[in-house]
Amino acid sequence: MICSNLSVNSDGALVFAGADVRLLAAKYGTPLYLMDENRIRSNCRAYTEGVTSFPGGGIAAFAGKAASFKEMYRIIADEGMFADVVSPGEVNTAFAAGFPMDRLFFHSNNKSDADIAFGIDRGVGYFVVDGEDELFALDRIAKEKGIVQKILLRLTPGIDPHTFEAVATGKVDSKFGAAIETGQAKELFLKARGCKNVSLEGFHCHVGSQVFESGVFFDAARIMLGFVASLKNEFGFTTRLLDLGGGYGTRYVETDPFIDITDNVRQVAGTVKTLCASYGIDAPVIALEPGRSIVADAGLTLYTAGSVKRIPGYKNYVSVDGGMTDNPRFALYGSKYTVLPADRMNEERTFECSLVGRCCESGDIIQEHVFLPEGIKRGDLIAVCTTGAYNYSMSSNYNRVPRPPVVMLRDGADRVAVRRETVDDIIALDF
Amino acid sequence: MICSNLSVNSDGALVFAGADVRLLAAKYGTPLYLMDENRIRSNCRAYTEGVTSFPGGGIAAFAGKAASFKEMYRIIADEGMFADVVSPGEVNTAFAAGFPMDRLFFHSNNKSDADIAFGIDRGVGYFVVDGEDELFALDRIAKEKGIVQKILLRLTPGIDPHTFEAVATGKVDSKFGAAIETGQAKELFLKARGCKNVSLEGFHCHVGSQVFESGVFFDAARIMLGFVASLKNEFGFTTRLLDLGGGYGTRYVETDPFIDITDNVRQVAGTVKTLCASYGIDAPVIALEPGRSIVADAGLTLYTAGSVKRIPGYKNYVSVDGGMTDNPRFALYGSKYTVLPADRMNEERTFECSLVGRCCESGDIIQEHVFLPEGIKRGDLIAVCTTGAYNYSMSSNYNRVPRPPVVMLRDGADRVAVRRETVDDIIALDF
Repeated sequence: MICSNLSVNSDGALVFAGADVRLLAAKYGTPLYLMDENRIRSNCRAYTEGVTSFPGGGIAAFAGKAASFKEMYRIIADEGMFADVVSPGEVNTAFAAGFPMDRLFFHSNNKSDADIAFGIDRGVGYFVVDGEDELFALDRIAKEKGIVQKILLRLTPGIDPHTFEAVATGKVDSKFGAAIETGQAKELFLKARGCKNVSLEGFHCHVGSQVFESGVFFDAARIMLGFVASLKNEFGFTTRLLDLGGGYGTRYVETDPFIDITDNVRQVAGTVKTLCASYGIDAPVIALEPGRSIVADAGLTLYTAGSVKRIPGYKNYVSVDGGMTDNPRFALYGSKYTVLPADRMNEERTFECSLVGRCCESGDIIQEHVFLPEGIKRGDLIAVCTTGAYNYSMSSNYNRVPRPPVVMLRDGADRVAVRRETVDDIIALDF
Repeated sequence: MICSNLSVNSDGALVFAGADVRLLAAKYGTPLYLMDENRIRSNCRAYTEGVTSFPGGGIAAFAGKAASFKEMYRIIADEGMFADVVSPGEVNTAFAAGFPMDRLFFHSNNKSDADIAFGIDRGVGYFVVDGEDELFALDRIAKEKGIVQKILLRLTPGIDPHTFEAVATGKVDSKFGAAIETGQAKELFLKARGCKNVSLEGFHCHVGSQVFESGVFFDAARIMLGFVASLKNEFGFTTRLLDLGGGYGTRYVETDPFIDITDNVRQVAGTVKTLCASYGIDAPVIALEPGRSIVADAGLTLYTAGSVKRIPGYKNYVSVDGGMTDNPRFALYGSKYTVLPADRMNEERTFECSLVGRCCESGDIIQEHVFLPEGIKRGDLIAVCTTGAYNYSMSSNYNRVPRPPVVMLRDGADRVAVRRETVDDIIALDF
């Protein structure tokens, strides 16, 4: 199985996080997002344990954009992690969940004055300042509010992490941050030093998502610590916090590698230690920001099959009761997923088909070249694995399809974390 | 200008539907969806006038998925049109708006039993039945409810309309409908004739979206009417209604052609007349289903620029306060849009940049290779034209970004059709 939280019971039914998914489908209906809380927590611990190895101390911050709802922030807080937020909406969600606001990093390439004021008012710990415009706006608003705001500066180390283009963010050519290579990072640093109502704690970079090897973190650490050292030497500036961004990849399909996150983080910590020694600097606190690898394999989506279409000489289609509205990642990126016939797990899977959604759009595809049992039919349960990241968070009401609920599973118990949207919820804002 | 509802006033500000957009931005904030009601109505009339030419009568049905909210259904009803719906959510929106339910076509490749029951309970005029599973489910549920439900059967004529793959739906290889070529259409017809609680009124096909030439409609008419004639000859079956689906394209960029919709529809009507005569059949009522061409150029999105980033030797970025959350079409399809500096319309546009959104994602791009004035800066207004279709309807809360309001403009007056979502709305379903 693609993740250790999956198994098959004696009825040939899929078991996820210890629960027979047929019972959950019957209880909550489909489409249904399931989340395995124990898996979330063990993923958190892979990082929180790993980051203790950083010589100057470490922080693991959950990148909330992967799955932002109140219950997630409660779990993350309970695991002693920090969190990234990227908008007032995420700040508000964390705040409403009682998340400790001093443990928030407020990212985004584009914060309006209103966004900045909102973040300050809610007591956000760190603003990750993306550029000069934002720096000056933040300094001005912090002054108006009579505070000194802790900040990091977002820099681009100039690394192409060889991941999918849309998720590659560490390159010089990026909408995010200021490039070290062009000298703009140093300019931004000097401007930040000149601002009285911000306290520059350090720097941030992000080298991409779905990273399966620590090499990109080694490169990021080398470039960023080199920059830190140059500021120490030239200006006597001490960097207290260095955020290397990102996290490791998650297995979506069997061909994806298994990686040991804690070991990998320790390896990065070793590299940081060596680099700090060679640069002759004290090691800053190092932060990592996993999102996908905290929640992706803790998630599973259950659908009910509807139309099963066989077109002789062409191909076959199995339609489900969700689609690009609850999982737009195939439509956006051609993302791979593992698809399972949840109530026919012991049957041979020889029926090749396209698994498609219910939207009135040909591009509403969940996965191509899926193999299901020949007997698959209207009413059968279909599970799409590893949907905990960027599924609920990217969901839409396209075709006015209500968003599924998120049900959290733990130790045999299940509870609603986000309730099912209704067709009346969807018209609530309409006049 | 890309559409005749755009102009520039003496201040160098963009005027849309007669209104200085700076005043609307000040009144409602940004991001902001604007809709030009007069343009919607004139687009409707291009079709309602055109379809009167069909020899057996014509119907223009608005494909609501392009822009589904209550006020749209009121306008469509007022224009005497029918509407397509594709989900209980769209049925519910039309119902709540007081739309005459007998003028609805209920599409979708995948209707669950609950969806079917919902549609029947709301009195939907026509179900467009996609396949055998749905046919039998509908017949059973209609029987339980003691009614006979009018239906069309969705067929695939086997036409590739040479449009973008994700919006090409008339091919044999499609998740939609039953193919004429494979004999499955005839099988489905025979099964429908055997069902006592459905009344088969005719057939439906859809040959794609963003069509700029009537050729594909001629082909669709030829194949579909040929099928209609074969059923007449073989079974004595009279087709009362033939829905040719789709509508014409909309100009997004200056290189897109201008087309006269009414003239084109009249041309299709002429072809239908000729075909019916040559096949020796009475002309059925012909329905068309424009969505995009009713609303696209009636829409405009206003943003406020935030970060303006110049990366020497690489490229430039202008970030706005929205993005893929309110317009995912570049991320999904690489769609082209015309971008205007709404409060600097008289300045030279020589600053080439990527117009990007505020999401924490490199793929959050609204348009590449945009030309704006050199002086563009934080706080300036940016207009993206022709966003009336598939922008609000495909919007999401990714990054927990609230969805913009839809403001309807008519004859110098403005009113809210969908109110702005708040950060508290977004957590309303969270436990």
